[in-house]
Amino acid sequence: MAASEDSLRRALVEKQSTIESQGNAVRALKASNAEKKAVDEAIEKLNALKLEKSSIEKQLQASVGGNPGSSVSKEAFRQAVVNTLVGRLFFIPSFKIYGGVAGLYDYGPPGCAIKSNVLAFWRQHFVLEENMLEVDCPCVTPEVVLKASGHVDKFTDLMVKDEKTGTCYRADHLLKDFCNEKIQKDLSITAEKAAELKHVLAVLDDLSAEELGTKIKEYGITAPDTRNPLSDPYPFNLMFQTSIGPSGLSPGYMRPETAQGIFVNFKDLYNYNGNKLPFAAAQIGQAFRNEISPRQGLLRVREFTLAEIEHFVDPDDKSHPKYSEVADLEFLMFPREQQISGQSAKKTCLGEAVSKGIVNNETLGYFIGRVYLFLTCLGIDKDRLRFRQHLANEMAHYAADCWDAEIESSYGWIECVGIADRSAYDLRAHMDKSGVPLVARERISEPKEVEKLVIAPVKKELGLSFKGNQKKVVEALEAMNEKEALDMKSSLETKGEVEFHVCTLGENVTIKKSMVSISKEKKKEHQRTFTPSVIEPSFGIGRIIYCLYEHSFYLRISCMRMLRKIISKSLTAAGISHKIDITGTSIGKRYARTDELGVPFAITVDSTSSVTIRERDSKDQIRVNVEEAATVMKSVTDGNTTWADAWANFPHHSSVSAEE
Amino acid sequence: MAASEDSLRRALVEKQSTIESQGNAVRALKASNAEKKAVDEAIEKLNALKLEKSSIEKQLQASVGGNPGSSVSKEAFRQAVVNTLVGRLFFIPSFKIYGGVAGLYDYGPPGCAIKSNVLAFWRQHFVLEENMLEVDCPCVTPEVVLKASGHVDKFTDLMVKDEKTGTCYRADHLLKDFCNEKIQKDLSITAEKAAELKHVLAVLDDLSAEELGTKIKEYGITAPDTRNPLSDPYPFNLMFQTSIGPSGLSPGYMRPETAQGIFVNFKDLYNYNGNKLPFAAAQIGQAFRNEISPRQGLLRVREFTLAEIEHFVDPDDKSHPKYSEVADLEFLMFPREQQISGQSAKKTCLGEAVSKGIVNNETLGYFIGRVYLFLTCLGIDKDRLRFRQHLANEMAHYAADCWDAEIESSYGWIECVGIADRSAYDLRAHMDKSGVPLVARERISEPKEVEKLVIAPVKKELGLSFKGNQKKVVEALEAMNEKEALDMKSSLETKGEVEFHVCTLGENVTIKKSMVSISKEKKKEHQRTFTPSVIEPSFGIGRIIYCLYEHSFYLRISCMRMLRKIISKSLTAAGISHKIDITGTSIGKRYARTDELGVPFAITVDSTSSVTIRERDSKDQIRVNVEEAATVMKSVTDGNTTWADAWANFPHHSSVSAEE
Repeated sequence: MAASEDSLRRALVEKQSTIESQGNAVRALKASNAEKKAVDEAIEKLNALKLEKSSIEKQLQASVGGNPGSSVSKEAFRQAVVNTLVGRLFFIPSFKIYGGVAGLYDYGPPGCAIKSNVLAFWRQHFVLEENMLEVDCPCVTPEVVLKASGHVDKFTDLMVKDEKTGTCYRADHLLKDFCNEKIQKDLSITAEKAAELKHVLAVLDDLSAEELGTKIKEYGITAPDTRNPLSDPYPFNLMFQTSIGPSGLSPGYMRPETAQGIFVNFKDLYNYNGNKLPFAAAQIGQAFRNEISPRQGLLRVREFTLAEIEHFVDPDDKSHPKYSEVADLEFLMFPREQQISGQSAKKTCLGEAVSKGIVNNETLGYFIGRVYLFLTCLGIDKDRLRFRQHLANEMAHYAADCWDAEIESSYGWIECVGIADRSAYDLRAHMDKSGVPLVARERISEPKEVEKLVIAPVKKELGLSFKGNQKKVVEALEAMNEKEALDMKSSLETKGEVEFHVCTLGENVTIKKSMVSISKEKKKEHQRTFTPSVIEPSFGIGRIIYCLYEHSFYLRISCMRMLRKIISKSLTAAGISHKIDITGTSIGKRYARTDELGVPFAITVDSTSSVTIRERDSKDQIRVNVEEAATVMKSVTDGNTTWADAWANFPHHSSVSAEE
Repeated sequence: MAASEDSLRRALVEKQSTIESQGNAVRALKASNAEKKAVDEAIEKLNALKLEKSSIEKQLQASVGGNPGSSVSKEAFRQAVVNTLVGRLFFIPSFKIYGGVAGLYDYGPPGCAIKSNVLAFWRQHFVLEENMLEVDCPCVTPEVVLKASGHVDKFTDLMVKDEKTGTCYRADHLLKDFCNEKIQKDLSITAEKAAELKHVLAVLDDLSAEELGTKIKEYGITAPDTRNPLSDPYPFNLMFQTSIGPSGLSPGYMRPETAQGIFVNFKDLYNYNGNKLPFAAAQIGQAFRNEISPRQGLLRVREFTLAEIEHFVDPDDKSHPKYSEVADLEFLMFPREQQISGQSAKKTCLGEAVSKGIVNNETLGYFIGRVYLFLTCLGIDKDRLRFRQHLANEMAHYAADCWDAEIESSYGWIECVGIADRSAYDLRAHMDKSGVPLVARERISEPKEVEKLVIAPVKKELGLSFKGNQKKVVEALEAMNEKEALDMKSSLETKGEVEFHVCTLGENVTIKKSMVSISKEKKKEHQRTFTPSVIEPSFGIGRIIYCLYEHSFYLRISCMRMLRKIISKSLTAAGISHKIDITGTSIGKRYARTDELGVPFAITVDSTSSVTIRERDSKDQIRVNVEEAATVMKSVTDGNTTWADAWANFPHHSSVSAEE
């Protein structure tokens, strides 16, 4: 908590108590029929105290709520942007004629053209520039893939239900809203209470279902729409579920990210790349998240286009050959340490951040630099773009490092690109689940002696028993980890055979002692086998486009509105009676209307530098600079000069509207 | 049925019966101890009859099965194409490491590049060329939209289940397979039976669930994998179903086509186009069909990319301003009449087909021409591309006309683009369901008097009762058709109020007499209001790409295989003993192997015009034209010339493989 806010809250509590004492004092004086002077003095003191309290409240309000004016103007700005975007069909709320669906938007014609350009540039800047292997996988994904990736078990948000109406809410959102509301609007809470609420906000993402439930009960939070009581929080999986094929027995999901399609193809892609590392694969496509209650308009949607890169690299060598091309870039970076110590993002040289170890490795740094170039080339304002490192509690346990490209918008700083070093997690998960080795091999110059588990399937025996399935059984045997293999070895020695699950067959097979030999041997290794690390830059295309709109948006109309005010002010100063006409009717009709009223001159604000002045009887029009408009009018209406003089001195305006 | 096939079947039945009589005659002669000459003559006659029968069988086989050699070579060709496509990662069976999912394929790196080029060209050729309004709508679609379009009720295939294992099959596929198998393989069936089976094939798409079930029972068709009995056929909806939001109360589907996203946006798009017709909207995106049991590999998939155009046009004027640009094109067309009369597709001038009314209108003709140009520019062989008109039983009742661009592949003629005049069906369906008018308006020069239903909502009254919902109620009232309005009128007159369903609100409201006035009035109309017709070209991008692969594919290896045979033949003719080595081992290892055996010369086929001849002891290599190879060998091995002569007369070949 900022020291000033803390001390203001304490001052407010003290002041309130002083006011109460003084109030009691006044009442006591009155009750004791004290002399008027003493009573008046006491009241005066009370009023002064109240004024002081009010002043502290204002300071506190400013401290906790930011600049309220600025927050209002942000909302107004956003409304202007969204009105234009929807009015001009950049976006259309999907299925609008049926009332729409929360979190689903269409790209209309101009939006579609922009999206297509952004994707073409992305392909150029990343896929072609780096010779990435682009793939295009289906959205429909069988359960086993997302079970392996962890999405089936862990891709959830905690939800609470209105116990009477059944309406669902995100539990963390309700708690967050409650805390923010209290901190910003309720000035009576103590500094200690405020500190507690801020702590809740800080650890919000780490709270378990139970802890969230306890807080919701403790704070008496109810359903926002009805004030009904809420259920306990429980996890809701954010994937759209479906069923593949007619049997109803093959659950599937709409992919929540495109990355898994790349991971499951690692073996083929590595092979396609000549069994060489590093290489990157890329994919552009739709992803789906069944949000509980989408907020933040175009930023939090249920279906969106992702562009993802999976760069596979030797975990022992995360250098990048083109790193030097980006090392000198300078831009706003916001490392973990600076966030914790309450500082803000600082302009930093990327190369220094990497060499100091703030960014974990060169390849991660390279992609951060490339993302910076991509976004700023697109048109994102570099002063409203920062790279924020994930805090420890934001990052998955396996991740080595993670940075988000955040773009400042009217909603605040928005995560638009995530750039994570996910280590070997994803490939290992799919290797474990599928039994197919997803590894890379490197020849080493000096063979080294190692004690090694040797799994030697006896192909002839396996072939006799499993015929066409032999290859899959062999692969599954070879993919066993050390523990599994040693367990099998001891089972085979004691029982002679063992049941063995072959994932690619979807069934158990019986392995006999004659079918495989398992041993630990000293071996000379000529090659190193390892699971590559993955560096993943992942782009939310819709969010980038929305931020691009905000950064590119300006209102010519607001400039003219300002001009209108300036001219009106100067006319008033010059003592000229006037009326502003901002009705939507055509300029011709507006002239006709003022002509009928007998208004002698009309000033039309039709440009940002000069205006048109029109004389009623002649219908002649001249062009006059904004600053001169009032002076010219004053001079002509006072009779110091004539319209003929003005007509002689200023350029003429000849456009005549159709209605005249 | 072709006359020849029919007569062959009859001839076969007759011949069989003659053979049986003659067999009886032989047995009778033997039994009566007739003289040997008579028996021999009878047997000779029997054998002659059998030979004649065998000849008829061969003719019939050729007639019903096509050229069996050609069908085998088509399969082999397809296998070669698919092997290359999968081997070089043009396609990858999705989620392969988990055993894959039928009907789901990834585009690998080269496939992805091709897809991206095809889509870019499509955008250029259609969207940009015609100033189409491109949109990009979500795949997740709420039920109400697909209920209106008819997909929820009618987008089904008939399915049967193996009664013991529960495995599902498409009922029509099983019946089709049975009929084809019988006709092609069972030569003993009568001409009448064959005609019946052919009739079943012809009407297959029109059979109801009951009729299909009856046929399946009648023919004793069982589950192909187990021979178990089958359930009665029942409809299975081909859409992937899901649920939108956490409540479980909002069913949704993955869109089966992209078109609906355009139809529901008609009002905004028409407005965006300045309220002018004609205009076209376009969309590229994923579509989903949960096929019961996908067959035909890459052609019948569960998720695919569609590119669709909806061209909205005045039903009274379907001319097209750019029609003359395509009218002179000539290509294979296959109108309904020619299909029915058993002819084949003929090269036709598009302009003639339109002027004769074979193609329903100019706009439809224009798109047929543009599709022809698109496909042939891509690289589709124009001689293997035809435009086939839908037969009456293939076409929806509302469709005015429909043509498929079919491309010939190893699977036969494949529908790759559908070009349909869908009349006003889709817009009307969504207007009826949503209550939002999806109409166009045209100013007419001479106002005309019409008797017209006038629905005049009293906005003030409606505003008082419905507040913010007033607009939606007004729109719904105005969207009533004549019958609904007159029903409401009479209800209001008798009861004073009526319940009225407002779709956009999702609820009933009570309409009172004071809220709306409904009457039939003579009115002068200054504008014509109508529902536009829709001409829809719809492209299956994956199918087009697959056909493109087949049309572009050739095997250089087969040329070398041919050379190998030619050289081998000429060596044999020259009396030189030799052995062809097509093992996959390196050329160096193969030389080492023949050296060890003492083979003096090796000919390596490493180009299509010349070969390398290598002498064992010197390891020297010379280049010799294919035609001369055997002569040179003959001359040297016969001792007529020496290797030194050959070395002097032919260019030397210097590449030495690493293993030598």
